Amino acid sequence: MEWERIEEKLNRLLAEGRHGQLRGALMMLNPVDIANYMKQLDPEKLLLLFRVLPKDSSADVFSYMDADQRETLVNSIGDAEITALIDEMFLDDAVDFLEELPANAVKRVLQNTDPKTRAIINQFLKYPENSAGSLMTIEYCEFKPGMDVSDALRVIKETGVDKESVYTLYLVDDQRHLTATVPLHKVLVSDNDVPLARLVDPALIYVKTTDDQEVVADTVRKYHLMSIPVVDGEGRMVGIITADDIMDVIEEENTEDFEKMSGLAPADETYFKTPMLKLATNRLPWLMILMFTSIVSGAIIAKFENVLAVSVLLSASIPMLMDTGGNCGQQASTLMIRGMALGEVKFRDLPRVLWTEARVGLLVGAVLSAVTFVRLLLLNGASVSMAGVIAFSLFATVVIAKSIGCVLPLLASRIKLDPALAAAPLITTLVDAASLFIYFSIASQFIL
Amino acid sequence: MEWERIEEKLNRLLAEGRHGQLRGALMMLNPVDIANYMKQLDPEKLLLLFRVLPKDSSADVFSYMDADQRETLVNSIGDAEITALIDEMFLDDAVDFLEELPANAVKRVLQNTDPKTRAIINQFLKYPENSAGSLMTIEYCEFKPGMDVSDALRVIKETGVDKESVYTLYLVDDQRHLTATVPLHKVLVSDNDVPLARLVDPALIYVKTTDDQEVVADTVRKYHLMSIPVVDGEGRMVGIITADDIMDVIEEENTEDFEKMSGLAPADETYFKTPMLKLATNRLPWLMILMFTSIVSGAIIAKFENVLAVSVLLSASIPMLMDTGGNCGQQASTLMIRGMALGEVKFRDLPRVLWTEARVGLLVGAVLSAVTFVRLLLLNGASVSMAGVIAFSLFATVVIAKSIGCVLPLLASRIKLDPALAAAPLITTLVDAASLFIYFSIASQFIL
Repeated sequence: MEWERIEEKLNRLLAEGRHGQLRGALMMLNPVDIANYMKQLDPEKLLLLFRVLPKDSSADVFSYMDADQRETLVNSIGDAEITALIDEMFLDDAVDFLEELPANAVKRVLQNTDPKTRAIINQFLKYPENSAGSLMTIEYCEFKPGMDVSDALRVIKETGVDKESVYTLYLVDDQRHLTATVPLHKVLVSDNDVPLARLVDPALIYVKTTDDQEVVADTVRKYHLMSIPVVDGEGRMVGIITADDIMDVIEEENTEDFEKMSGLAPADETYFKTPMLKLATNRLPWLMILMFTSIVSGAIIAKFENVLAVSVLLSASIPMLMDTGGNCGQQASTLMIRGMALGEVKFRDLPRVLWTEARVGLLVGAVLSAVTFVRLLLLNGASVSMAGVIAFSLFATVVIAKSIGCVLPLLASRIKLDPALAAAPLITTLVDAASLFIYFSIASQFIL
Repeated sequence: MEWERIEEKLNRLLAEGRHGQLRGALMMLNPVDIANYMKQLDPEKLLLLFRVLPKDSSADVFSYMDADQRETLVNSIGDAEITALIDEMFLDDAVDFLEELPANAVKRVLQNTDPKTRAIINQFLKYPENSAGSLMTIEYCEFKPGMDVSDALRVIKETGVDKESVYTLYLVDDQRHLTATVPLHKVLVSDNDVPLARLVDPALIYVKTTDDQEVVADTVRKYHLMSIPVVDGEGRMVGIITADDIMDVIEEENTEDFEKMSGLAPADETYFKTPMLKLATNRLPWLMILMFTSIVSGAIIAKFENVLAVSVLLSASIPMLMDTGGNCGQQASTLMIRGMALGEVKFRDLPRVLWTEARVGLLVGAVLSAVTFVRLLLLNGASVSMAGVIAFSLFATVVIAKSIGCVLPLLASRIKLDPALAAAPLITTLVDAASLFIYFSIASQFIL
């Protein structure tokens, strides 16, 4: 592993106090890798390494560090140093960092930044969590609709654009309303006297500060954008969001869906960062609800006690029915929830989906129950009527599970509930109750 | 809905045959929206609209169209027109399109493209599916390490860079080895005589043509890149992959994980595009396997038949035990699989994870079994020993489910199996068998 060799060398330089060489070595590394390396350092070495970092990369490294490590650092460096860091960081990163700090630390830090930065940061801190406003950066260049290519290139050179902002030119009028976007590559291949107005994108695509990050991600992904402008309630340009940040949003939203579908309260932090008690309380609500709903299935079993007494094969088949039903329901609901998340499936597709799932259920159910019928006859020595009752119950369970599995998420979305949260965890329990009821009804009809 | 008004207008212009106005209207729209609009058109209107499209956007629109609509179009336009389209498309889009066509159509189309394009496309078609090679585009600019800023700007202007390639300058030596990358924004703010060598990024980050798309996505996301260079086995630069395509890869990989975790064979197509028979066969293998493994749970029930006969409460509690165990196991395994997918959890964390999950299990199990104990005493009139046996079995089930749920995915990853595929679907069945065994063992000890 090449990376391990690099770490070894850094460790040695750090231990031997060779600060000059250490600084040289750090210059060769990506800020993300430096931040990763710092995770294993004790507070003392952390501070030392941070002080040795080349000036122009310390803010970058700082933005990629863990929250708790940043707090350690903040507690050991002076206010002036923190303020310098914040001024160097991209504003969205600075805001992310400030949001993690205790309120009095934020106040202390903000007192030292210049009034303009402070005003902007305060504005940022007011945007709702996970909104476009809290996600955007204000490091972008504005251009006037009347400019030509040479004007634009001059503005870029003078303002010293940053990496976050370079790919698109945003044209704003005198009231700062966003009027059009111009892709930079068109500017670069055009002659100096070409007006920007001739290079604008056909359609103006933007989001509002109050839009949820999911809307932002969907829009960026749909139109294959590298960045998207953000406007306020009056259509005035206030920031941009870049594709690299959108990738994190997509993973976050997916993690949330995974968690909800497994009956977990979505966690703000990653696994190891979440305290044990929080891990437990995130899981309890759904477990408690589902434990109580499963009492219904138990009541059905109790009600048909006399049927169970006929043959042990009847009780021995309960796990197979419950598990297969649960699995079938989960398969269907996963496809629905995923289809809705990616924008393919909508509530109005309900008839079409139900028709598909019903046929899939008939087919899958037929295969599974045929196999089970033969298995019961040959391996378990069941009578034809017994094997028939169990196999047919399995068949009905599969069809019902597929139907419930596809209908429930669509219905949840219809009444504006999150399908991953409201539908997925319930499906197994619902299918259980339905399949046990069918099972015993059929059994008591044909066997008793 | 504004979009509906736009659609209405397009419909009218199309119906009235006002081709000039239609072309003007289409100029105002984004290619993605035009492709979406075309979905509802019959083949005749589809062809008409396509012919009316402004020349410079028809290839763009074509890349965003559905596969079946593209086939319809290809069958109704001439070879020359198809060839012109392919020459206009980005190469990665063209290859995607050709991969969907029947082999003889590909041959026909390729015969007409110029030999150089044909050679490149043939090379592309050889890369394994979902590899970096199949994902990359070759539309990027190469620069020589000895160039300065004015050279670079001249090269950009002369080669007429395309949107896919503008953000980073790739420096390649005479053997076409990738030696360094230079961010465009540094070029734009520097004076003309600054050598590119002074503007290079500290670390060179790239992927190989044979790397899996998951590796590409992880690297791009980790380093917050807008594009990543792709090199061949000898380190020669052959293409780039941009962030907008990575977003699709991330969603694809997530969809695959969702499907695997629900015991579905990953589908190549979206839900509505997958034929019913394929939907059914994607689901059958795991359903069949899990149906057979659940027979073990059935056998455990059969073995302890005499215990069940003691009280109906014992059989009525089976669904609660099975469901709660399954849910607990799923919660733990989801957190593991997600943690591994995002790179936070690794096999070496097993002791730490097990220690956390065991404590979470003890806590959650204590709460759930206390509630159940009281419920059984007060609502079901159970004896203290009966309520104790059921509550304690629930407690043990929760702890075991949490442990199996975290260990199994980590073990799967250790032996190089995909945890989402190999571990998740099995967990419920395993937990079922374990919990039923504990349940009956305890019950036969204390109640019989």
